[in-house]
Amino acid sequence: MSNGKGLTSQTEDFSAWYNEIVQQAELASHSPVRGCMVIRPYGYRIWELMQGALDAMFKATGHQNAYFPLLLPKSALDREAEHVEGFAPETAIVTHAGRTQLEEPLVIRPTSEAIIWPILRDWIHSYRDLPVLLNQWANVVRWELRTRPFLRTTEFLWQEGHTAHADEAEAEEETRRMLGVYRTFMEGWMAMPVITGLKTDSERFAGALRTYACEGLMKDNKALQAGTSHNLGQNFARAFDVRYQTEEGEHVYVWSTSWGVSTRMVGGLIMTHGDDDGLVLPPKLAPYEVVIVPIWRSDEQRNLVLEAGDRVRADLEAAGVRVHVDDREGMNPGSKYYDWERRGVPLRLEVGPRDVEAESVMVVRRFTPQGTERKTPLPMNGAGPRLRTHLDNIQDELLAAAKERRESATVRGVEDYGEFKSLMEGESGFVYTGWCGEPDCEQKVKDDTKATIRVIPDEEYRSAEAPTRCLCGAPSTCEVVRARAY
Amino acid sequence: MSNGKGLTSQTEDFSAWYNEIVQQAELASHSPVRGCMVIRPYGYRIWELMQGALDAMFKATGHQNAYFPLLLPKSALDREAEHVEGFAPETAIVTHAGRTQLEEPLVIRPTSEAIIWPILRDWIHSYRDLPVLLNQWANVVRWELRTRPFLRTTEFLWQEGHTAHADEAEAEEETRRMLGVYRTFMEGWMAMPVITGLKTDSERFAGALRTYACEGLMKDNKALQAGTSHNLGQNFARAFDVRYQTEEGEHVYVWSTSWGVSTRMVGGLIMTHGDDDGLVLPPKLAPYEVVIVPIWRSDEQRNLVLEAGDRVRADLEAAGVRVHVDDREGMNPGSKYYDWERRGVPLRLEVGPRDVEAESVMVVRRFTPQGTERKTPLPMNGAGPRLRTHLDNIQDELLAAAKERRESATVRGVEDYGEFKSLMEGESGFVYTGWCGEPDCEQKVKDDTKATIRVIPDEEYRSAEAPTRCLCGAPSTCEVVRARAY
Repeated sequence: MSNGKGLTSQTEDFSAWYNEIVQQAELASHSPVRGCMVIRPYGYRIWELMQGALDAMFKATGHQNAYFPLLLPKSALDREAEHVEGFAPETAIVTHAGRTQLEEPLVIRPTSEAIIWPILRDWIHSYRDLPVLLNQWANVVRWELRTRPFLRTTEFLWQEGHTAHADEAEAEEETRRMLGVYRTFMEGWMAMPVITGLKTDSERFAGALRTYACEGLMKDNKALQAGTSHNLGQNFARAFDVRYQTEEGEHVYVWSTSWGVSTRMVGGLIMTHGDDDGLVLPPKLAPYEVVIVPIWRSDEQRNLVLEAGDRVRADLEAAGVRVHVDDREGMNPGSKYYDWERRGVPLRLEVGPRDVEAESVMVVRRFTPQGTERKTPLPMNGAGPRLRTHLDNIQDELLAAAKERRESATVRGVEDYGEFKSLMEGESGFVYTGWCGEPDCEQKVKDDTKATIRVIPDEEYRSAEAPTRCLCGAPSTCEVVRARAY
Repeated sequence: MSNGKGLTSQTEDFSAWYNEIVQQAELASHSPVRGCMVIRPYGYRIWELMQGALDAMFKATGHQNAYFPLLLPKSALDREAEHVEGFAPETAIVTHAGRTQLEEPLVIRPTSEAIIWPILRDWIHSYRDLPVLLNQWANVVRWELRTRPFLRTTEFLWQEGHTAHADEAEAEEETRRMLGVYRTFMEGWMAMPVITGLKTDSERFAGALRTYACEGLMKDNKALQAGTSHNLGQNFARAFDVRYQTEEGEHVYVWSTSWGVSTRMVGGLIMTHGDDDGLVLPPKLAPYEVVIVPIWRSDEQRNLVLEAGDRVRADLEAAGVRVHVDDREGMNPGSKYYDWERRGVPLRLEVGPRDVEAESVMVVRRFTPQGTERKTPLPMNGAGPRLRTHLDNIQDELLAAAKERRESATVRGVEDYGEFKSLMEGESGFVYTGWCGEPDCEQKVKDDTKATIRVIPDEEYRSAEAPTRCLCGAPSTCEVVRARAY
C-alpha cells in the first residue's frame, strides 16, 4: 500500500522502499558503471559527519592516518594464501597502462593488508617501533554480483585500521578496543543499537584468527553487519616476514589487527530509523539538524519572515546547531515541508507573519514517539539553547526506540528447530539459540532458513539462561544469535 | 657538500636533498608498485591540514562534496575527443574483474569529467537547478614515466571541483574565484607566494577553453604549477548533451568549470621553505607547531620536568596550539632536537630542571630570519597566548622571506634571447619577457632552454613597462613569465 506520496510503504515492499528513499532523499544515484553508485551531496554529508566523529575517536585512541597505494602487485596478494582465497573472486585487475601491457598485472585493493604489510616490514625493526597504530580512509573495489546502494557496491568508501603489536594480548586488546569504538559510534551517533560478538569460522575474515562484529537489526528484521574488527594473529607477519627485535634481542613476528567500517553504515542508518514518510536522521548525523521554513504571501511579509528566520538561524548556529533556511522562491511551504520530511531533518521551524508578531516559531518534529507532540510553539527568545537540548533528547529517543524495536523483534532460548523455522518464516529478528559448534550444522540451518549465525554474543548480550541444545538437538557449546542478514 | 648530518645540501644536489628529506622527515616512502608512494603519518597529517583549510573555503564559497566512481567506461572517456587525446596515454585499464574478462574495459579515473558529466545530465533540467557547485576529494591515477614523491606520482590524492552554470560570465567568474581561493590558501597557509595567470594553449587542460594556474618558485629556482582552474566552456556539456531549460523555455548547453589541487602541494611546501637542516613548516600546516623536549638525568628530575612540560602543553593547547611532548625514553635531548628540526617543527621548547626552577622555558625557532634570536627564554606563565602570537608571526615571516627570495630570483623586461639563455643556464627564477603569441616560437624556446611559459600573468603581476618584443624579435602580443619547471 503506497502512502500516497510516491513512496512505497515499508510493509508493502521494504526493498522498494529502500531504493526509493535513496533516490528521493538524494542520497545516491546510479552510475554508468555496473555496481558503482554516485554519492550525492546530501548522502556524502552524512558520510562526512560519520567520518568526522570516527576520525576523532581513532585519534583519541592513538591512531594516525596514512595512505597506501590503490594498486597492489598481484604477487603480493598471492603471498597470504587464505587471504587470497577469500578475495580472488572479487578483484578487479589492471592489465594495461600507459598504452602498454603490464609485465605484472595489478589488483585494485579489495582491502589493504597485502600492500601494507610489505611496507610495514621496512618500518618495524625493534620493540621501540611498536605498537604501530594506523588508519586509512580510502576507496576499495570488490566485484560483487548483486549490488545495492550503500549496502553492497562494487566500489565503496571505508576506513581500514591496521596495527602491529608486540604480543597477542595487546593485539587482542586493540581488536576489542576498536570494536568498542564502533559500538560507541553506532549507538551514540547513529542511534543504532548493536550486538557485538565473535564471528564463527565460516564468517571469519580471510586470514584472521578471530573476527568480531557489530550487528544491527533493520526495520525489516534483517541483520546488518555494520563493522568488523579482526585479530590477525601472526598470519600476515609470517606471510610478509615482519619481525621485530625484542628487548631481549630475539627476532619475533609481530601481532596485527585490522578493522573497518564503510559507507554501508549509511544504509544501516536509513533502515534503522526511516519510515513511510522517508528518511529519519539522528541529529548528530543530520546534514541539517533544523530547517527553517519562512512563510509569506506579500513582499512585505517576505522581508519580515526572512529577517526573523535569519535571526533564529544565527541564534541556533551560536548554540552549535546545523541549520538551514529554506528561502527557495516559487515553491510553497507545503512542498518544502514534504521535501525536508523525506530527507529526514529532525526539526522543522515554521515562521509566518503571525509567528513573528508573537515572537514565536512553530517547531515540528520529524520523529514523534508516543506521548510527544508533533507541533509545539516556541518563543524565539532563547530558541538556540532550547532546541540544542531538544535535539539532544531526540538523539536519545531514537536510540531508545530502536532498542525497544529490536528487543520486541528478538526471541531468546529457542531450541526447537520447527519453532526456529517458523520464526524465520514469520520474519522474526534476532533469535538466540544454542549451537553444537559444527560448521555443517551451521550451513544446514542457513540452507534451510537463510538465517546465519550473526555472532557468538559478548557476555553482556547473553541470555540469563543459555540454551543447552543446538537446533540440531546436539548439546550446545555456546549461545549464538541468528538472523537473516544483508 | 654535506652538512655532516646525513642530508645532502641544497646547493650540492637539490634533487637528492629533496628525496632525502622526504625519507628522513618520514613524509612518504616508496611502495612495491611503480610510481606509487606511501604517504606516511607525518606527511599525511600535513595533507589533512591542507584538506581541512581548503574544504572550509570550498564550503564557504557554496560548494558541496560528493563522490563519483573510480572507474569510467572507456566509451565515456571517448566522447570528448580533445579530452581523451590528452589523457589516453596516461590511463590504467581494468580488463578483468571477478575472474572474467569485462565486456567493456574500464578506465581508472585520471580526472573525473568523463564520469561526472553523464551523471550531471540527469540532475540538471531547468535554470532552477543551476548553478551546480560540487567538489570531490579523491585518488586519481595517471601512468607517468618519471615519478617523484608528491611532485609526480602514478596515483595521487587531490580534490576536483566541478561546476555547471547558466552562462559564460558566471563560469568565468567561478573559474577565477577558485583560482583566488587557491592563491589565498597557498599564500596564507603554505606561505608560498604564487603568480596567477592564464596558461598558453599548449599548456591548457585538454578540453578547456581557458586554464588558469598558480605558479610558485621553488628554492632551486624552478617553477611549480601548484593548482589549476579551468573554464571548460560548453565543451563537456556538448559532448555529454547536458542542457537546461532557461526561464524563457529555451534548451541550451550549460557552461562548466573544473579546478584542482593535489598532494603535489606537499612537494611545493618542502621546496619553498626547506633548508640544509631539513624541513621547515609554516605553523598553519605543521602537524605539531610546538614540540616540548623535557630534559632530565635523575628520576626525580624526570618527574619534575615532565610535570612542568605537561602544564605548558595544557596552556598551549588552550591557546589553540598543536603541541607534542617528546617524552621518549632512551633518547638524549640532542637527538630529539635533531629529529624535530629535520621534521620542520616551527618551535621547540626545552624544559630542564633549572628552567622549571626559574618558571621559564627555552624557546628555539626553526626558522630564524635575520635580526631574530634563535633561542630565547620565556616565562612559563602566559606562555600559551604569547607562543600563539609568536607562531602567527613566524607564519607571516615565512611568506615574507619566500616572497623576497622569489623577487630576488626574478628578472623582468628581458628581450634579448642571448641574455635569456644565459639567465636560464645560470638557473635564474622567473623571467618576464614578451611573446609573439606563436606556439612554434614557444616550443623553440622550450627546446633550446627547457624553459616554458608558465603563465600570461594576471594584471597585478605584470611589469610597469611590458617588453615590446618577443625573444624571437617579433612584436610582443603579451607579457609572459618563463621558467624551467617541475
